[in-house]
Amino acid sequence: MATDSWVNETLYPDWGQRFRVVRELARVQSDFQDIMVFESASHGRVMLLDGVTQITEGDEFVYQEMLTHVPLLAHGEAKRVLIIGAGDGGVLRRVLQHRGVERAVMVEIDGEVIRLAKEFLPGIGGDAWHDPRAEVIVGDGIDYVRRAEPASFDVVIVDSTDPIGVGEVLFTDEFYAGCARLLTPRGLVVNQCGVPFMQSDELRETSVRRGKSFPDVWAYVAAVPTYVGGFMTLGWAAKDGAARLADVATIRTRAEAAGILGATRYWTPEIHVGAFNLPPYIAEALPKA
Amino acid sequence: MATDSWVNETLYPDWGQRFRVVRELARVQSDFQDIMVFESASHGRVMLLDGVTQITEGDEFVYQEMLTHVPLLAHGEAKRVLIIGAGDGGVLRRVLQHRGVERAVMVEIDGEVIRLAKEFLPGIGGDAWHDPRAEVIVGDGIDYVRRAEPASFDVVIVDSTDPIGVGEVLFTDEFYAGCARLLTPRGLVVNQCGVPFMQSDELRETSVRRGKSFPDVWAYVAAVPTYVGGFMTLGWAAKDGAARLADVATIRTRAEAAGILGATRYWTPEIHVGAFNLPPYIAEALPKA
Repeated sequence: MATDSWVNETLYPDWGQRFRVVRELARVQSDFQDIMVFESASHGRVMLLDGVTQITEGDEFVYQEMLTHVPLLAHGEAKRVLIIGAGDGGVLRRVLQHRGVERAVMVEIDGEVIRLAKEFLPGIGGDAWHDPRAEVIVGDGIDYVRRAEPASFDVVIVDSTDPIGVGEVLFTDEFYAGCARLLTPRGLVVNQCGVPFMQSDELRETSVRRGKSFPDVWAYVAAVPTYVGGFMTLGWAAKDGAARLADVATIRTRAEAAGILGATRYWTPEIHVGAFNLPPYIAEALPKA
Repeated sequence: MATDSWVNETLYPDWGQRFRVVRELARVQSDFQDIMVFESASHGRVMLLDGVTQITEGDEFVYQEMLTHVPLLAHGEAKRVLIIGAGDGGVLRRVLQHRGVERAVMVEIDGEVIRLAKEFLPGIGGDAWHDPRAEVIVGDGIDYVRRAEPASFDVVIVDSTDPIGVGEVLFTDEFYAGCARLLTPRGLVVNQCGVPFMQSDELRETSVRRGKSFPDVWAYVAAVPTYVGGFMTLGWAAKDGAARLADVATIRTRAEAAGILGATRYWTPEIHVGAFNLPPYIAEALPKA
């Protein structure tokens, strides 16, 4: 069955993971990036963008649950959610699991990612693509943020590539200022900030930028199997510093009301609260209080 | 400087990490295993045993701190510590950082691992090799455990390879029964139990075995950059169920008294306590209560 064909991830020049490929399913050069989807022997189907692992069927639950449930339950009353990137549909699906969500707008710049995810990774987005609360826009995230109505969203989730290439504008001062403007008074934004053991500058530099537009800047961690290199960090920027201090009992109550409790494989109320406790080697990348 | 030579870890047949090799430092076939030490381009020096990453200079602090500080501070009054394996000396060094430790016995089966670690990874063990409280024995861990005086140690730390080959006896019923016998009434044992996302059977099977000799069986997690695949688990077996329930304030007080507080890069009192909160995908590998 398995061939001797391997895919080497090229995120770091001197270290990384490799997958044994059972068969390649798609290889597309879109207007924005090189997209590859293959069946792995170890993690189900895998999507790479420009040689970097974005999602695998096997471990997607870790990243998606932590990127979605933490901000929504930390907020506690999120009704309108803006998703930037996340073309595979996994964040959209998790957002719409929350009973209280009335509207989820997803803006993905690369329509080919959406098309290939629907065709080859249908379980990731599931029925979310057809949910009447969802609006899926193929377009430029920074442009959408610029033109959005003030105070029109409660939570922004940024599921982008690293700040090189097409994802770079999603880590700029202008982008965060725009997020602050379109968020409601208790609003918050989360975004993927890389793996600090390998990429500590990413968290350091973007935290400084978030701090220009938000009073409460921090990060939380998740151990994602195929974002190799120890904890990955998810950047946190909130208008209200209380959101990340909610205790386990509060988060549990909210999760139960939202229909999330017991429906997860990584996220729990305890892990939610504990994820904000950073190892010193990661905390040192955050701005000093 | 860097060559185009790569080392592919062979722990899993279909997925794994690879390192760019700057230069090979040693390659030895000992009586027990194939030992390789090389200078990597990304993680400093690296030691592999039978093709599996054991330690890198870059990230050793994560594993060593969690394997050492958690059991010693959870116990709270550990004076005599038995270390099985850990031939690189890193656990011994961390154990001896604790002011209250009076005696640390380390039993490593492969003298070549110790010799190569002293020569090529001198910073890992540091001065611990010469500490008057340390006794380093080249010998069989299961044999040492068989012959040890009852109630002669407070904590046992098992830093072994996975339960294949030379490390297999360290996961048997007999080994855990022996540990229970040599431990004091509040004693506990921790051991590395692999990466559950890739090796869930390892935690499942060894937890059942630990449960035959100890009333309190659990696990805690650490995100070790080069033990790829999400959280690794450290197995926990204690005579006193209270040890793993100590709260953050208690652990902080003990760490301050031990001289550990502020001296770590991964471990903190909050991370110590939080590490016992397992994601559901890991908790399901533990015996049902």
